[in-house]
Amino acid sequence: MLDTIPRVVRYIAIYHESLVISFVFAFLAFLITLKTIPRLKQPFLNAQLSGIDVLKLNKPVLPETLGLPVAIIYLIAMFLFIPIPFISWFGTNDMVALVHEEAPHLGTFPYHKLGEILSAILAIQSMVLLGFADDVLDVRWRYKVWFPAIAGIPLLIFYYTNFGVTYVVTPIQLRPWLGDIVHLGPLYYVYMVSLIIFCTHSINILAGINGIEAGQSLVIALSIIVNDLLFIYNNPDQASVEVHLFSLYFMLPFAGITAALLYYNWYPAQVFVGDTFCYFAGMTIAVVGILGHFPKTLVLFFIPQMFNFLYSCPQLFRFVECPRHRMPRVRQQDSSILLQCSTLTLDYDRKPTGKVGYAMLAFLNALGLLKVSARDANGRILECNNLTLINLVLAYTGPLAENHLTLAILIIQILCSLLAFYIRYSLVKFVY
Amino acid sequence: MLDTIPRVVRYIAIYHESLVISFVFAFLAFLITLKTIPRLKQPFLNAQLSGIDVLKLNKPVLPETLGLPVAIIYLIAMFLFIPIPFISWFGTNDMVALVHEEAPHLGTFPYHKLGEILSAILAIQSMVLLGFADDVLDVRWRYKVWFPAIAGIPLLIFYYTNFGVTYVVTPIQLRPWLGDIVHLGPLYYVYMVSLIIFCTHSINILAGINGIEAGQSLVIALSIIVNDLLFIYNNPDQASVEVHLFSLYFMLPFAGITAALLYYNWYPAQVFVGDTFCYFAGMTIAVVGILGHFPKTLVLFFIPQMFNFLYSCPQLFRFVECPRHRMPRVRQQDSSILLQCSTLTLDYDRKPTGKVGYAMLAFLNALGLLKVSARDANGRILECNNLTLINLVLAYTGPLAENHLTLAILIIQILCSLLAFYIRYSLVKFVY
Repeated sequence: MLDTIPRVVRYIAIYHESLVISFVFAFLAFLITLKTIPRLKQPFLNAQLSGIDVLKLNKPVLPETLGLPVAIIYLIAMFLFIPIPFISWFGTNDMVALVHEEAPHLGTFPYHKLGEILSAILAIQSMVLLGFADDVLDVRWRYKVWFPAIAGIPLLIFYYTNFGVTYVVTPIQLRPWLGDIVHLGPLYYVYMVSLIIFCTHSINILAGINGIEAGQSLVIALSIIVNDLLFIYNNPDQASVEVHLFSLYFMLPFAGITAALLYYNWYPAQVFVGDTFCYFAGMTIAVVGILGHFPKTLVLFFIPQMFNFLYSCPQLFRFVECPRHRMPRVRQQDSSILLQCSTLTLDYDRKPTGKVGYAMLAFLNALGLLKVSARDANGRILECNNLTLINLVLAYTGPLAENHLTLAILIIQILCSLLAFYIRYSLVKFVY
Repeated sequence: MLDTIPRVVRYIAIYHESLVISFVFAFLAFLITLKTIPRLKQPFLNAQLSGIDVLKLNKPVLPETLGLPVAIIYLIAMFLFIPIPFISWFGTNDMVALVHEEAPHLGTFPYHKLGEILSAILAIQSMVLLGFADDVLDVRWRYKVWFPAIAGIPLLIFYYTNFGVTYVVTPIQLRPWLGDIVHLGPLYYVYMVSLIIFCTHSINILAGINGIEAGQSLVIALSIIVNDLLFIYNNPDQASVEVHLFSLYFMLPFAGITAALLYYNWYPAQVFVGDTFCYFAGMTIAVVGILGHFPKTLVLFFIPQMFNFLYSCPQLFRFVECPRHRMPRVRQQDSSILLQCSTLTLDYDRKPTGKVGYAMLAFLNALGLLKVSARDANGRILECNNLTLINLVLAYTGPLAENHLTLAILIIQILCSLLAFYIRYSLVKFVY
């Protein structure tokens, strides 16, 4: 094992120059972000891009929306990186002729590949713009839920013009009925739009404590990087290597800037990331999953987000009461402060909690996914934890310091990534 | 002449379906913008995106940065329009084969063209993002002067990957010395960056009265549209027709949304356009000039902006005093209010106006481009108009109502466009 690592490094250094350069870009982007964020704190406070950190005793006002400069640094890094993978095709026309003579396998300039990268960056940038507009203008949920679909248009259109594949391979168990592959046609685009909307909003939903947004994004990005590296190493299929290389070109600098942002957003946070970052991160990851042709593996990396979303549904869609904030509650203990799970109180006379809502809660309770803190005389639930992953963790662990809570969620995220790798590389045999 | 117009319309309807669709898109974008702006006034005021209209007596607070939603509507229109010009290449692979058989001149899918469009949109969108960031965060001039260069990176890189032409045709008079064409090499990129920076900022500099930013952008856009149509009609050179078609695809919807914005920004303004719009407009026009291969004609359409910039230089670069605002002054006359030219007072003891500054003013005075309102005993200028085109017009015309002032500037802009057409289509014979 110890011997393998330098061999992998040597392999990459020899066969994948662009990847080495991408890594250098990622490191530079990390350093620049690290340098830039502290300088922007005051200008952001002056521009009233700020928020109160309600989970601290002194309720400090922190600069918000620092995801914007971070995203801009990322986009500039990507702009400058664009030509690198195409360097072999460059130069005057004479040089092209020369290249053709000496390396005929290179063929003509891969404009479709370049277009793919441009459309991906365009989709990411659209989401940064809409995210920033949301941070400044506070757009209503019923409008902003569609933002990712709008931002995803360039990507879908490029997918379409690129004679996009719109079939999926059928699981073995279903093949007798559906055949080896299922042509989804236009439904495939619905599937991609759903994926984009889900990825983009899911990071924004699992939020509210220091370091959680940047932390989960970093874990997912690193999981994708590991997955890509596994595909690239000694893979004879050139096309497969290429898509995973492009995934790495997007993910490495993303991991770099996210790590720097996490440094300042970690407990006790000096800055907030804003919706801008959550949207930007979600879109970047979704784009990579789609263009890298691994949407299913991607969904596996989002297990905690998916759980959090499904678990939240009874409240999000108002089957049970949903207070405006579902953040944990602050509890002072001696000199330290801890977070404990926040609760919702049910009122059976008022509309929201009808029979359906109660059935949902009973179901969650049966699964052990609900901490009931009060019941009425008939045994009906009167008070239980708010339905978010963060509150569920607190319900199980009891009060935690904020940094320990973030760490607990990130450990869950890492464990889910390991599970995803297990499913992807071991269990998959039984399905495909 | 009367007979020609329907013939041109018939010609376009038959030979250029995409252009007809682009026109429909432009009209729809116009209507949607017209509908959207009034609805956003209150949300923008709530988000403190607002400014005071200081040239009115009651100093109303107006929503600012309405350029943002307008630019977003434009971008969505462009996203949706992207596939249209490529429609002949679409469908399944079978259809492609069919197309190849039936229309072999179509060749393979023009990814380089698609990439060109994507990089152009990316550059425009980058400028919208940076412009909005500037509106919210009030970035300092020494940083934001470089914004267009950053936003232009994708375009320049695409130009580079596309084996961009980096020579210019030499004017006849210089050919004995320089040859028929001059290879500028990397200098060509410096030229393009300068053009992008100039176009983007020049609209922002000729600003400050109701309707002027959107008005000048609309006149320039319409000039480009006329120029493109002249090129397309009965032109046997297919490549030339194609670049001007693409210019139209960008300019038609731009003219649409700008007209709608002008409607609300016209005197008395209901909304302000913000730096976002000025940057967005400048970049869109610059991009079209570069990818449409008519940067020189484009510069001709910017004659008033160029004059305004050169005329402003003594103040911009602090050779003479520059007050914070150089807007016209308000003067109440009976019940109506008029604008008169604002002045700068020279102080020869303090630093700014040295010998160079005084020489510049004397030179402008000799050209009749300065209205001196006070001199000291030695005949030195003590007070003169601020060096902007708007103040110069007022110095000549005397006090004007705000709408008449805007109209005067726009008439100058239109006259300069006519001059540009004269130079481009008549005088050019003597130079090329």
